[in-house]
Amino acid sequence: MTDASAPQRLAPTTDGGPVGPVMVIGGAEDKLGERVILSRFVELAGGGRGHIAVISTASSLGDAATDLYRHIFGRVGGGTVTGLRPETREEANDPQTVAALTGATGIFMTGGNQLRLSSVIGGTKLGAAILDAHGQGAVVAGTSAGASAVATHMMAFGSSGATPKHRMAHVSVGLGLLVNVVVDQHFEQRTRLGRLLAVVAQSPSLIGLGLDEDTAAIIDANDVLEVIGRGSVTIVDGSEVITDAFHTTGHKPMMVSNARLHSLPSGYRFDLRARRVLPLDATPNARIAQLAQGRIAKMVRQAAAEGRNDRAIERRRLRHEDRKASE
Amino acid sequence: MTDASAPQRLAPTTDGGPVGPVMVIGGAEDKLGERVILSRFVELAGGGRGHIAVISTASSLGDAATDLYRHIFGRVGGGTVTGLRPETREEANDPQTVAALTGATGIFMTGGNQLRLSSVIGGTKLGAAILDAHGQGAVVAGTSAGASAVATHMMAFGSSGATPKHRMAHVSVGLGLLVNVVVDQHFEQRTRLGRLLAVVAQSPSLIGLGLDEDTAAIIDANDVLEVIGRGSVTIVDGSEVITDAFHTTGHKPMMVSNARLHSLPSGYRFDLRARRVLPLDATPNARIAQLAQGRIAKMVRQAAAEGRNDRAIERRRLRHEDRKASE
Repeated sequence: MTDASAPQRLAPTTDGGPVGPVMVIGGAEDKLGERVILSRFVELAGGGRGHIAVISTASSLGDAATDLYRHIFGRVGGGTVTGLRPETREEANDPQTVAALTGATGIFMTGGNQLRLSSVIGGTKLGAAILDAHGQGAVVAGTSAGASAVATHMMAFGSSGATPKHRMAHVSVGLGLLVNVVVDQHFEQRTRLGRLLAVVAQSPSLIGLGLDEDTAAIIDANDVLEVIGRGSVTIVDGSEVITDAFHTTGHKPMMVSNARLHSLPSGYRFDLRARRVLPLDATPNARIAQLAQGRIAKMVRQAAAEGRNDRAIERRRLRHEDRKASE
Repeated sequence: MTDASAPQRLAPTTDGGPVGPVMVIGGAEDKLGERVILSRFVELAGGGRGHIAVISTASSLGDAATDLYRHIFGRVGGGTVTGLRPETREEANDPQTVAALTGATGIFMTGGNQLRLSSVIGGTKLGAAILDAHGQGAVVAGTSAGASAVATHMMAFGSSGATPKHRMAHVSVGLGLLVNVVVDQHFEQRTRLGRLLAVVAQSPSLIGLGLDEDTAAIIDANDVLEVIGRGSVTIVDGSEVITDAFHTTGHKPMMVSNARLHSLPSGYRFDLRARRVLPLDATPNARIAQLAQGRIAKMVRQAAAEGRNDRAIERRRLRHEDRKASE
């Protein structure tokens, strides 16, 4: 039986291999410093051998957005970069536009207004080509508006605030790379928990992802999500939710009970199918434990030596006085 | 066995009866309009036969805060109002100050700075007298800083934001009317979810209550919480929480997974012992269902009549034309 609320992919895996990763970024990602997020995108897109397509349809900055990312991807070791900026559905259906995605190993959608992405590209040949490339293993990333647009259900716009209210958020159809997920961005900075709770309470089959700025979630072909960047990813699981969403009226607060909330900073991974956080890689903790054990063993040896030889204390006192004298 | 995370009361119930209600208000409660919250407080304090003590220690406004509430409580049918404003521990230990609470049926703590309440009144004879009055059935209410101070663990101060971070909140000892609860106020307006999550993740035995402005939670002797007012009460239940609070450093985001979140508007009740929302009173819904059934039954009768008598349709057409003619 299909698990109605498990994440799904619409991308056809034409070559039998796994779909590529999806990378959703909360906006305002670091462009001048360590560039952790954009470097990771370039790495996932194959580094110097990769072919990246930047889609700037959401942006009102024209080609400037593409030029900025072309520059950064070059600086962090990326391969070729092609700019794509369809502004009408006609352009998004143009075979020449679609051809630009042939052989793409990475697709990057800029910020701006997600409704431009969904209304210009959704349901066009370019939209299908994005899914095809993804099905053949290309990483698809989006920042801000570009992040919102990746899922089948897209947070189109709404109001801010931490308390869920009726009519707070409007949902449209996104590009369909992720199913049963809804993405919101600039999450902490614009206080968007309320609208994410409201959408998940109305549609508990959706897992809500709230991305802080300069923070990204990378979702692999097994639907395991990894957090990187400066902030946290908030995950709202509504599978046990109790709500009055269906009879709240006007713009009143909405009752949402039993929502399960996860707030995950960099390094944490979350299994979207099992809906639970995964343990951290044991390596760093194991190393600390090893060091601590070494120190304790040394202290035990010293204490034992002192027990056998009372002059040890005297020696330590003398050493201490030596040190004081030389200060 | 004691349930270590169930809400408890420290107030001694000297007369064998139940403790009074605790009413915590998120600040900025309506003072000029319907005054739903302040009217309810006066009602719980016994209305015209009540004796209310207003404690304005938290406020920097001097006696003006007391005068404001005295005026409002009078307007909504309250009885006598006594002002209390100890500013030192010496004053809070003065038998004359303490005597002012004799026979009090309601105690109201104004807003301001909760650290003034805890540091001036906590652990003094006045602090004990508040617990005694409460144990004898008096309602104890606080707004803003006054709300924060009611619990054993008090959110003293902290920074805002929706994402939990290390060192975000500082906890002190409050007045002890509620145990295993931590209260935060101006909750949505000042975006305080992050610090409430951080405190509950570090101390999962605490139930976090986040009160929006002009919104109150009334907790009865059975630890059932009722929401009234314009906004919502956010309840954070950390009993199943997974966190790295114990090894996050600096001011970095904290991992908090599996927090259970409830956002409850006016009219909802929550059982703090069972940690679950209670169903709404059936009365209003049952009434709507009854009305709808009445309408449907009438339509069924009309349809049946039309079946028996084809002229019914003709009659309706004629009535419709009559109405149009008279427009």
